[in-house]
Amino acid sequence: MSFLFTVIKEDSVSSARLGKILTSHGEVNTPAFMPVGTQGTVKSLTPEDMEDLSAEIILCNTYHLFLRPGHEVIARLGGLHSFIHWKRPLLTDSGGFQIYSISTLKKIKEEGVFFRSHLDGSSHLLTPERAVEVQEALGADIIMCLDECTPYPSSFDYTQGSLSLTTRWAERSKKAHTKKDQALFGIIQGGMHPDLRKQSTREIVGFDFPGYAIGGLGVGETKGMLYEILDTTVPLIPSDKPRYLMGIGTPQDLLEGAKKGIDMFDCVLPTRHARNGMLFTGFGNLVIKNAEYADDPKPIDPQCGCYTCQHYSRAYLRHLFMAKEILSARLNTIHNLYYYLNLMKDIRDAIRADRVEEFSCDFYEKQKTVLVNQGTTRSLYFVQ
Amino acid sequence: MSFLFTVIKEDSVSSARLGKILTSHGEVNTPAFMPVGTQGTVKSLTPEDMEDLSAEIILCNTYHLFLRPGHEVIARLGGLHSFIHWKRPLLTDSGGFQIYSISTLKKIKEEGVFFRSHLDGSSHLLTPERAVEVQEALGADIIMCLDECTPYPSSFDYTQGSLSLTTRWAERSKKAHTKKDQALFGIIQGGMHPDLRKQSTREIVGFDFPGYAIGGLGVGETKGMLYEILDTTVPLIPSDKPRYLMGIGTPQDLLEGAKKGIDMFDCVLPTRHARNGMLFTGFGNLVIKNAEYADDPKPIDPQCGCYTCQHYSRAYLRHLFMAKEILSARLNTIHNLYYYLNLMKDIRDAIRADRVEEFSCDFYEKQKTVLVNQGTTRSLYFVQ
Repeated sequence: MSFLFTVIKEDSVSSARLGKILTSHGEVNTPAFMPVGTQGTVKSLTPEDMEDLSAEIILCNTYHLFLRPGHEVIARLGGLHSFIHWKRPLLTDSGGFQIYSISTLKKIKEEGVFFRSHLDGSSHLLTPERAVEVQEALGADIIMCLDECTPYPSSFDYTQGSLSLTTRWAERSKKAHTKKDQALFGIIQGGMHPDLRKQSTREIVGFDFPGYAIGGLGVGETKGMLYEILDTTVPLIPSDKPRYLMGIGTPQDLLEGAKKGIDMFDCVLPTRHARNGMLFTGFGNLVIKNAEYADDPKPIDPQCGCYTCQHYSRAYLRHLFMAKEILSARLNTIHNLYYYLNLMKDIRDAIRADRVEEFSCDFYEKQKTVLVNQGTTRSLYFVQ
Repeated sequence: MSFLFTVIKEDSVSSARLGKILTSHGEVNTPAFMPVGTQGTVKSLTPEDMEDLSAEIILCNTYHLFLRPGHEVIARLGGLHSFIHWKRPLLTDSGGFQIYSISTLKKIKEEGVFFRSHLDGSSHLLTPERAVEVQEALGADIIMCLDECTPYPSSFDYTQGSLSLTTRWAERSKKAHTKKDQALFGIIQGGMHPDLRKQSTREIVGFDFPGYAIGGLGVGETKGMLYEILDTTVPLIPSDKPRYLMGIGTPQDLLEGAKKGIDMFDCVLPTRHARNGMLFTGFGNLVIKNAEYADDPKPIDPQCGCYTCQHYSRAYLRHLFMAKEILSARLNTIHNLYYYLNLMKDIRDAIRADRVEEFSCDFYEKQKTVLVNQGTTRSLYFVQ
């Protein structure tokens, strides 16, 4: 067995738990945040940078790698780990989400998804079997079933049909899966309808996957809806299996998700925000292009232990950003990923010390942030 | 005395010499190549990367830093070394060359150069005194006199008037120079007219600067003209002073320049070519976007010891380039700078072992390159 998940400790107040995933490429301490390396690179950083940041697992997007350079090329070159020079655990998604969000002319049928490449307009059909085949060629430690990410908002009826398709595709994915050194995770859908989330969870859990993802969130719903869906869904997932909240989210989402029992997260927020000059700190976000930083000798966050904060002033980082220097993206990305990965470490430490609630109160106190229960998650991406 | 140049050994066949520059920020072994960090960063790399590459000195452009973020800001933040987190020697140019090549509406008068910023169209006057003042605020170890980079081609009369202005500006620069921990270098002009090069050299050398630059080359002249000007000029520069060939050049130029007695070089070629996917190797140049590399598992150069060649295939580097990933610029820049800096190390080793001619023959044999005496240096930039 090359995939093993162990719950080490459960928090006495919240549903948070400390765990460990073992893969043939090493271990992942959970709750974990997985930086996103869409095209086979966490933008601007090397694998050594990621190791320095204590990243234990990264995510790559099957859709992008399937289209360019192609999974056969990567397989011929020894698989994704070797191709991108990353020795630690890897997760690939199924490609489904990007088809819905990036490609053109997509058409969902029982067979699979027809779509055109956003790169050259070429036509493709991604079936559940093909998604597994491509991911087996890439060779990540954790791979995902093809699903339909139900649009938001969607009616009860549409959502029910959609989750049923996702269930049938999960069954086909499992049948197609041959490589036992890769763990195939099921994905729970059901939109914003609690009853349908329950139905989807029951159906997907019925296939006994080694891990379960909660998909279809972070698509424009309110924070309240997001958290309600987690409250509905998580308790129905067997507690001995890792729970992965896909594509989420803000630091607040990570903390709240962990408190609700989520073990794995991924999101482009820290890396994308970094390139846009939006920097995370323990005391709120900092927009580096603001004129007030033009001759500010302080680091981004005087409390931060990252490479960027150890060596560079806000003034220099603002200069690099204004001058559109490549190093701007790199130094900002290091800072934001350090913030995210350090937050996860702090959450794990808090669970170990059985003081998650205290940690949570401290977190909000420092951020001086009011829990946003109104507004959509999408707008929050840009507001914060 | 915070600036000291020592010639350690002279080659018995060519005019090459091994030397060492001592500054208050450390030593530079010559002949040296200075990577260009135009806006206060060697594009895509950190100072630690530059140290790993064994870069001993880098060059920053006064014109860019004067306009953004401004030399006063940098001075308030402790000077350029501190601002950009670079502990080793630094050289700044005077800003003159960029005014001629980048800014708009420039007008050269006795007083100085009037120009408009390429960033916002704002009007500025750069005088010899101002160029020194700005460079003193930046605080590099080696600073340059303001000169007129004579356009190519220029008539004998224009060139003579131009070099005389450069001479008068050199005198004013020297008078304005107050910080003794910075070495102010004079710049020799004289266009492509050997007699005027001799005149300029005599005049500039008359001011007894601690180092001399040969400017106004790499502006479109043929290789033959470039080498002839070096043969004319170098012997007239006192042998106990470092000789700096500004803005040059190709690997071949570095080797030929070193053989003619040049001690310092700078050029954007390795860094700019890297970002354009043009990679230097001992066996000629490699254009990484070429389809032949799409599934090539070999490194750029199997003989190369750089980080990029140790860990990445041509196929991955091609993928990063095609996908416009930031890491492409970074990995390619590491490789090209390693090539340039390693070439300089090999040249220094050859001088030390008194086998420069053998090294030179080996270099051309490996490159399978015919010495190009026709064609302009400018076209060669793009051809090779």
